[in-house]
Amino acid sequence: MLLKKNIPVNYVVGKIKNELIMVAAYAIIIAMFHQFFPSLRISIPIAVPTILATIISLLLAFRSNQAYDRWWEARGIWGAIVNDSRSLAREILTFLDSGESASQELEGFKKRFINRQIAWCYSLSQSLRGQNSYIRSKDLLVDEEIKFTRRFTNMPNSLLKLHGLDLRLAYNNGWLNEYQQVQIDSTLNRLCDSMGKCERIKNTVFPATYSLYIHFCLYLFIALLPFGLIEYFGMFEVPLIIAIAAAFLLVEKMAIHLQDPFENKPTDTPTTAISQTIERDLKQMLNDNQHDDILHRKEQQAREEANLYYIL
Amino acid sequence: MLLKKNIPVNYVVGKIKNELIMVAAYAIIIAMFHQFFPSLRISIPIAVPTILATIISLLLAFRSNQAYDRWWEARGIWGAIVNDSRSLAREILTFLDSGESASQELEGFKKRFINRQIAWCYSLSQSLRGQNSYIRSKDLLVDEEIKFTRRFTNMPNSLLKLHGLDLRLAYNNGWLNEYQQVQIDSTLNRLCDSMGKCERIKNTVFPATYSLYIHFCLYLFIALLPFGLIEYFGMFEVPLIIAIAAAFLLVEKMAIHLQDPFENKPTDTPTTAISQTIERDLKQMLNDNQHDDILHRKEQQAREEANLYYIL
Amino acid sequence: MLLKKNIPVNYVVGKIKNELIMVAAYAIIIAMFHQFFPSLRISIPIAVPTILATIISLLLAFRSNQAYDRWWEARGIWGAIVNDSRSLAREILTFLDSGESASQELEGFKKRFINRQIAWCYSLSQSLRGQNSYIRSKDLLVDEEIKFTRRFTNMPNSLLKLHGLDLRLAYNNGWLNEYQQVQIDSTLNRLCDSMGKCERIKNTVFPATYSLYIHFCLYLFIALLPFGLIEYFGMFEVPLIIAIAAAFLLVEKMAIHLQDPFENKPTDTPTTAISQTIERDLKQMLNDNQHDDILHRKEQQAREEANLYYIL
Amino acid sequence: MLLKKNIPVNYVVGKIKNELIMVAAYAIIIAMFHQFFPSLRISIPIAVPTILATIISLLLAFRSNQAYDRWWEARGIWGAIVNDSRSLAREILTFLDSGESASQELEGFKKRFINRQIAWCYSLSQSLRGQNSYIRSKDLLVDEEIKFTRRFTNMPNSLLKLHGLDLRLAYNNGWLNEYQQVQIDSTLNRLCDSMGKCERIKNTVFPATYSLYIHFCLYLFIALLPFGLIEYFGMFEVPLIIAIAAAFLLVEKMAIHLQDPFENKPTDTPTTAISQTIERDLKQMLNDNQHDDILHRKEQQAREEANLYYIL
Amino acid sequence: MLLKKNIPVNYVVGKIKNELIMVAAYAIIIAMFHQFFPSLRISIPIAVPTILATIISLLLAFRSNQAYDRWWEARGIWGAIVNDSRSLAREILTFLDSGESASQELEGFKKRFINRQIAWCYSLSQSLRGQNSYIRSKDLLVDEEIKFTRRFTNMPNSLLKLHGLDLRLAYNNGWLNEYQQVQIDSTLNRLCDSMGKCERIKNTVFPATYSLYIHFCLYLFIALLPFGLIEYFGMFEVPLIIAIAAAFLLVEKMAIHLQDPFENKPTDTPTTAISQTIERDLKQMLNDNQHDDILHRKEQQAREEANLYYIL
Repeated sequence: MLLKKNIPVNYVVGKIKNELIMVAAYAIIIAMFHQFFPSLRISIPIAVPTILATIISLLLAFRSNQAYDRWWEARGIWGAIVNDSRSLAREILTFLDSGESASQELEGFKKRFINRQIAWCYSLSQSLRGQNSYIRSKDLLVDEEIKFTRRFTNMPNSLLKLHGLDLRLAYNNGWLNEYQQVQIDSTLNRLCDSMGKCERIKNTVFPATYSLYIHFCLYLFIALLPFGLIEYFGMFEVPLIIAIAAAFLLVEKMAIHLQDPFENKPTDTPTTAISQTIERDLKQMLNDNQHDDILHRKEQQAREEANLYYIL
Repeated sequence: MLLKKNIPVNYVVGKIKNELIMVAAYAIIIAMFHQFFPSLRISIPIAVPTILATIISLLLAFRSNQAYDRWWEARGIWGAIVNDSRSLAREILTFLDSGESASQELEGFKKRFINRQIAWCYSLSQSLRGQNSYIRSKDLLVDEEIKFTRRFTNMPNSLLKLHGLDLRLAYNNGWLNEYQQVQIDSTLNRLCDSMGKCERIKNTVFPATYSLYIHFCLYLFIALLPFGLIEYFGMFEVPLIIAIAAAFLLVEKMAIHLQDPFENKPTDTPTTAISQTIERDLKQMLNDNQHDDILHRKEQQAREEANLYYIL
Repeated sequence: MLLKKNIPVNYVVGKIKNELIMVAAYAIIIAMFHQFFPSLRISIPIAVPTILATIISLLLAFRSNQAYDRWWEARGIWGAIVNDSRSLAREILTFLDSGESASQELEGFKKRFINRQIAWCYSLSQSLRGQNSYIRSKDLLVDEEIKFTRRFTNMPNSLLKLHGLDLRLAYNNGWLNEYQQVQIDSTLNRLCDSMGKCERIKNTVFPATYSLYIHFCLYLFIALLPFGLIEYFGMFEVPLIIAIAAAFLLVEKMAIHLQDPFENKPTDTPTTAISQTIERDLKQMLNDNQHDDILHRKEQQAREEANLYYIL
Repeated sequence: MLLKKNIPVNYVVGKIKNELIMVAAYAIIIAMFHQFFPSLRISIPIAVPTILATIISLLLAFRSNQAYDRWWEARGIWGAIVNDSRSLAREILTFLDSGESASQELEGFKKRFINRQIAWCYSLSQSLRGQNSYIRSKDLLVDEEIKFTRRFTNMPNSLLKLHGLDLRLAYNNGWLNEYQQVQIDSTLNRLCDSMGKCERIKNTVFPATYSLYIHFCLYLFIALLPFGLIEYFGMFEVPLIIAIAAAFLLVEKMAIHLQDPFENKPTDTPTTAISQTIERDLKQMLNDNQHDDILHRKEQQAREEANLYYIL
Repeated sequence: MLLKKNIPVNYVVGKIKNELIMVAAYAIIIAMFHQFFPSLRISIPIAVPTILATIISLLLAFRSNQAYDRWWEARGIWGAIVNDSRSLAREILTFLDSGESASQELEGFKKRFINRQIAWCYSLSQSLRGQNSYIRSKDLLVDEEIKFTRRFTNMPNSLLKLHGLDLRLAYNNGWLNEYQQVQIDSTLNRLCDSMGKCERIKNTVFPATYSLYIHFCLYLFIALLPFGLIEYFGMFEVPLIIAIAAAFLLVEKMAIHLQDPFENKPTDTPTTAISQTIERDLKQMLNDNQHDDILHRKEQQAREEANLYYIL
């Protein structure tokens, strides 16, 4: 999850500790060599590492841009899941209508459907992080549904199939007309799309040659750097090289962190918090259902009796 | 809200005053040290801070681009809210039809629906800024609707549910056919999407590692800068360093301002002004309704009687 | 409107004349001071303005990219208006069908609808430029429609409402079935979206802090430049500084021009020309209508009689 | 059309021959002047053209990116035309159904419709390149259709109107139900969008101020370059300046080529080749139609008789 | 296919081996010439290749960005294929309903349809790589379907036509209503779009002038580089030039690899693995079908009998 102030300096430096120790060791060896074997001194003009710095800066900037785009896309997908979950709940609550009779069965059906949608959010969130998909299923699913989902590798997909089967049931029971069934099916398609997009981001490695070549150029640059500075600084080049290397390595690490937004890291997409928001909103929409029907029936009566406050 | 000439120079400098005072103090200390302890002078070639400047410039440029994209996306979402509010009003006014009888009830229904849509815009605008969502609800909602929304944490979402319930009512009353209900439901889905997208931008912190690493690199650059300039300028490096630091810090601040477009700042998305435009347009579409029906009825009569000016 | 060869060099230089005169005056004063008060000479290494040049170049490049995106988006919206106007005309001409009788009334209806769509394009074009929205309404609208639109602040929106009312009329007259009404309503929604998107681009100022900070950095750079060059050139720095300043100021101006594409400037989106293309295409589709029905009736007869040339 | 190896070096150099000759002449004149009037020598530090090189590089890189985006968008539109043509053919072949009788007339109708779609692709391709739109119309259209299209300025648009009229005919004949008519109409809308998008790219000049300002900065840079190099090289600066100018001019030319993808150049979108692919696929789908109905009837019989291989 | 650790250093260096040998030979020749003909020494300031390095870096960075976008688009298309395949299966399994009788025939139909969708994924994957499209067709298609597809050049397109014909069959048999047919047809349209988008990426060469001009500028830069370094290093310039050339050539190669994602290379889109995931998910959805109907019937009975646990 991502909160405003949860990344201490230790955390930042800790991420590149090993790399920095290696860079420091390398810089010290070069400085030593330079000190004790003056006849073998190699020095290159600072313009040479500068040329490499330009291309590495550009590649790192583009790469961190692409990593940010992946992260923002992941966030956008979960935003779409919020929207489509609310739309689905609104459609289930306002489309389904049983006339007068059997109202209790329909209310049960609506509750079961919306709880299943909440369970879908939690199970998608968990399965993306490689954790137990059944975390909230006891509260939100009935036993037969749990048994049904156990037969699938992909639990969220099995819940979408149950949604589809329930839509057929509602249609056969006459609670939905055919246009409404197709309209809710379109909402299910959008949820299915969001699920697949999350899996795509989760399962697609950032192109390995891309990462590797940038990594290679970066170390080539760090390897040349001491020879460009040694002439001016002697031993003082060591802290300078560590500082410059730290800046570049941090940017590379940042990109690596952002590019995989479903890995239990502090910069992840906050899928659990989003699922909780969905649960709160959907439960309020659902629990309210018993009251508002009464409210609306009253309103309609009031209108039919008086037609008073509608006159302009 | 964002107007053309409302940002004085004081405002601009005021934003980075504290940082500039610290940078000035740091630059003065280095210059003093250099003056009074000539034996311990450290000087680095200007090429070293230049390398850092390149990568920081790129990262800041990309970051301000991403911040601008967030800001423009927020503006685009409110543009979509304008469009969908107008489309919703047009659909409500031209789809709903009660035949001959009960016209007064239907007019009241239409007025209530469109006023509720205006209230939705104001309440979304207010809730995004963390302010009272009920600001215009007295004028625009009936008491039972206000009572209904009080039971929800998310007021705009409760209004969308009321929209949905009213659509069912209209369908049951025979004012809408099933295709029209589904078409208006699609419009509600788009409004629900826009609402969720605003919440996503509001609630998603810009990735903390990203901000932090750029901030870290920027201060590393500013910390190295005096050592690169001290040799040429002595005490004159102080104003130069302040000027350069000001340029970079301003760009960083600009990005921070743009990236959160719903925070009551001068660069915000003008949600209140947009809501007022929606109110104006929707009220004109609504108030006009009483006249245009008459107009059209006249036109139709004219056509039925004469069929004159249609002959080509 | 944007034509290939309509921007003379005078126009280009004229845009930054005032700024260049000020820059020249500043450069001359610095050079004079340098000449006559040699004891107070200040000179800075050229690397310092170079660092600023890098970040300003990047910001200007990104900014001109964003301005270009706004301009291209505006062009794309008017492209969508062309497409949706044609689709609307095709749908009106091929969906509406009155069976045998009352064909004259229906032809009049079609003609009035399509003329109104042409009027919508002109009035949107004019209102975006802040000019008279009624420019072609005498030719294209009937008097009652003009009277109707006068009651609205937003004339194009009132025309869309008239479209919607006419669709209801056509549906009530049995010229359209309910699916066709909803399909045409979707086309109206897309036109409504395009209208709102144009208004968004028109009404949204480019973020003021963004423009201001870039402007500030640019003048900081120009202010430092003479001190970096004075040592090498003396009085010769004046033309050099003017040339460099001209390059940067031109790029900034270019961005300012592109970012507002509805302001009666030579780089504007050619909304009037596009409206004329729409008028030509829609009128050909409409006028042709009287012939092609006959054509098709003949064809059908031919087929029914012979079924000859369809055999493969 | 764009093939892998069709751009020889001659072609590349030929594009900037005139510019290079002028640059060479200019460089030689400067070198002569420098040689023969040593008292009037002007020399500027190489850092000055470097500052200009940075901003020009950025602007050229962004511009070539925008030109690439236009080119790729054009390619994507023609990709959408392929997809929608196939979808249209599939819908025409599988939706239209006449029950038992009059099958020959329906087969003729389907063939005429799909041939007209192929003709639409060819005529759009030709009209975008400003060539004869009727290139394949003899093979693909019936005489009455050709006569009909002659009354339109925009031939592809007239073919879409014929599509729409045929859909009405099919609906009136009972070959299509109303949902299918609306679904195919949506496909026509997408084709109409693609057509309009191609026209938009074709007719929209790249913003002239943008091109002009970049061009101006580029020549300013080339004009300054000899003064920065003359001191070190004397006459040797001539080949260097030609090489550097060639690199920048080539990048500018490349952008100019890519930005207009419908101009009969080797880098164009291969609209003719794409139209041929569409023709091949649609003809196979069509010709096959006579066999597969038989195939399916057999299959259904087999299933009705035995129901064997469906048992799991 | 793309796995995390499958690119050894050998592979990386191997890709640019030939280029590096040529660069080394060139650098050695220049160094020799410089050593043995001191009177003909040519040396240029390092700033000249730096100017070229800036523009090449920018062009390469943009180009690798565009190549990455192609690669990511390809991955996104296959993600959409996953989503639409699952949606198609859900729609087929939950829409089609035969009432009571003939259930066995319908189950066979569903199985055949879903197997055909799996075959479509495999055949698209194979045909994009230019390999045998019939790889899994024996398992997944019935003989008549294979015979049908043999008459088409484009096998996946023929399978979509079979899908469309089967939809008509299902509609004629009364298993689907007309809205459901149109809804599934929309899913087929999306699959058809994805197919066409893959073909577009496969068949569109990256613009040849673009590649060529960048290539030309890169070699111009490498050709100038030795003259900039020879003065400082003598023979030591050889390894430096190889290192710098390697960095730039690697970035160019990386872009070339990413831009064509369907060519049997290690960085390809993993279309076979994705097809296997689709097969697993669709088969689980299908095989489960026999159980869940029973499950649901039981649930419904339980509800009808007791209506117990639905009471809130």
